[in-house]
Amino acid sequence: MSKFTSKRLAAMVPYVPGEQPRERKYIKLNTNESPFPPREAVTEAAKAAAGTCHLYCDPEVTALTAALAERYGVQPENVLITNGSDEILNFFFMAFCDEESGVSYPDISYGFYSVFAGLYHLPAKEIPLDDELRIRVEDWLDRDTNLVFANPNAPTGRYLPPAEVERIVATNRNRIVVVDEAYIDFGGETVAPLIKKYDNLLVTGTFSKSRALAGGRVGFGIADAAMIGELKQIKYSTNPYNVNSVSAAMALAALREDEVYMDRCHTVMENRAYTTKALEALGFAVIPSMANFVFAKSERIGGEALYLALKERGILVRHFKNPRIKDYNRITIGTREQMDALLEAVNEILKEV
Amino acid sequence: MSKFTSKRLAAMVPYVPGEQPRERKYIKLNTNESPFPPREAVTEAAKAAAGTCHLYCDPEVTALTAALAERYGVQPENVLITNGSDEILNFFFMAFCDEESGVSYPDISYGFYSVFAGLYHLPAKEIPLDDELRIRVEDWLDRDTNLVFANPNAPTGRYLPPAEVERIVATNRNRIVVVDEAYIDFGGETVAPLIKKYDNLLVTGTFSKSRALAGGRVGFGIADAAMIGELKQIKYSTNPYNVNSVSAAMALAALREDEVYMDRCHTVMENRAYTTKALEALGFAVIPSMANFVFAKSERIGGEALYLALKERGILVRHFKNPRIKDYNRITIGTREQMDALLEAVNEILKEV
Repeated sequence: MSKFTSKRLAAMVPYVPGEQPRERKYIKLNTNESPFPPREAVTEAAKAAAGTCHLYCDPEVTALTAALAERYGVQPENVLITNGSDEILNFFFMAFCDEESGVSYPDISYGFYSVFAGLYHLPAKEIPLDDELRIRVEDWLDRDTNLVFANPNAPTGRYLPPAEVERIVATNRNRIVVVDEAYIDFGGETVAPLIKKYDNLLVTGTFSKSRALAGGRVGFGIADAAMIGELKQIKYSTNPYNVNSVSAAMALAALREDEVYMDRCHTVMENRAYTTKALEALGFAVIPSMANFVFAKSERIGGEALYLALKERGILVRHFKNPRIKDYNRITIGTREQMDALLEAVNEILKEV
Repeated sequence: MSKFTSKRLAAMVPYVPGEQPRERKYIKLNTNESPFPPREAVTEAAKAAAGTCHLYCDPEVTALTAALAERYGVQPENVLITNGSDEILNFFFMAFCDEESGVSYPDISYGFYSVFAGLYHLPAKEIPLDDELRIRVEDWLDRDTNLVFANPNAPTGRYLPPAEVERIVATNRNRIVVVDEAYIDFGGETVAPLIKKYDNLLVTGTFSKSRALAGGRVGFGIADAAMIGELKQIKYSTNPYNVNSVSAAMALAALREDEVYMDRCHTVMENRAYTTKALEALGFAVIPSMANFVFAKSERIGGEALYLALKERGILVRHFKNPRIKDYNRITIGTREQMDALLEAVNEILKEV
């Protein structure tokens, strides 16, 4: 804190992203990236778009917005593209959360929700997951605050089917329900079509995971046109050119080959089943996951000890210090080769404990 | 406004960007873009970076930060890269502006300053330019609020030399002075080195103008390390991966050919002198500009009438409705061919009035 610090900043606890070490070549299973690089259509689109970058990007992100609307069976006025899905979440907090609305989220979920709540000085409630780290739908009905949760949830991988999500949305019509679908393409079913029925539903998504563009930073929100209009006001009051030309072009190229990327998701799902089975054979408890990661613990080694032992062997996974989940590690599902390297390392580590 | 609207959003007046029409091919002299496309090194860098976009970008933007620090003769801890310079301005408002600090800016300047002031509900003061649209330095000494101004100023093009800027910074040591140098490379001299002497100075810059990357969205702030540290807290509390891999790679490629881009700025400066002289010959009053645009008015035709007549002829310039400057148009300096097309159109229009 300095003499210049605003009250807003003084109260802030920033988000801590997963490690991105540069000093050594790791097998990176810690930030839920795709193990498959973008396809040639994406790199060619990047080069072509770069050639006209002396001109401003399209503030309406018209072409990508239209393509995404078509993909999700909604209208362009139901879609807002952002600089990663963190930005659509930030816009939601700015546009719709204040002392009166408040906000609630699971006690175990994406760490950024509480950062935003702190940033905007909101009365925030954590709704506990049950003992098996599931969202207990009953706890989410008829609440008096805005609600945010990830589905599938992170870092657990637990999934609520659309009918359960709809119960939450339907019983909170005077508050906004944000369903963060960053991991929906690994076996889940999007609730985006429900925006036609519920004006209080905001579905957020990202190109970072299933569409292999984490480094490109493209996220989106899908909602009733009135809600999108209000979120756009935040965009035009903070950063009208928030999505650069090249990222928009890369995302559009990826969307044009959507089937290929969805096929890759199936490969990840196969590797997830394979990894789950192998970890269980090694004595791990693995939470059933519908995401591109698994959340696993072993009675034979602590969560942090396993994390450190894997790091020493050149494999990064993600460990969280929160007491409720400190025994677990979140392991991104990569290629079969990467998973075999992980399993071999885990096997060796367990032999030594 | 909806039943969901927060108090924050309800009070907001968004920024209106310059027109980006898509229905017709215009000669675009309205948003101060470079008339020269990015060089091949930039497009190749974009393609290469796109190939690894399945991985997250570097949240520290390490390589570009180091290169930019070297370019400005400061240390990497004095530099923060952002998603366009609008984002570094937003971070400044969030980190350092509250009811107590307030904020002041010129009555005629970049329109976003007042948008941010509104967004964060700040007590804001507009300090009037003098009758010739100059910043009157005396009005900026020993103020009681944070201060923001563009140098050269937009849309006037007026420039304050470093010694004058330093007087403002030196007499406001308990408040932050932001010098927005978006247009500094067209004949001005940056005050970035002054950050070693003054911990209350924040210099902002952009790759959008002189480095031909408006569509890539790369801006930056240069300040004392403590101030940069506080601005980083905002970044890590809103969007840690705010700068995507491809834009960072494009900016780095542009910086590696900095001399070429600075030579291009000289071409723009020559075209500015040429255009100024020609407009004066047509009877225009042209404010002496140190930016890549000129601000000009004629007694023979109103500002809006000229804007509309040029648009009809396929040439876009920027007109502002603010009563103090409604007689003027801001005309971006492009290639010699573009300026000749503008001058010919102006000549024709004046013959018809």
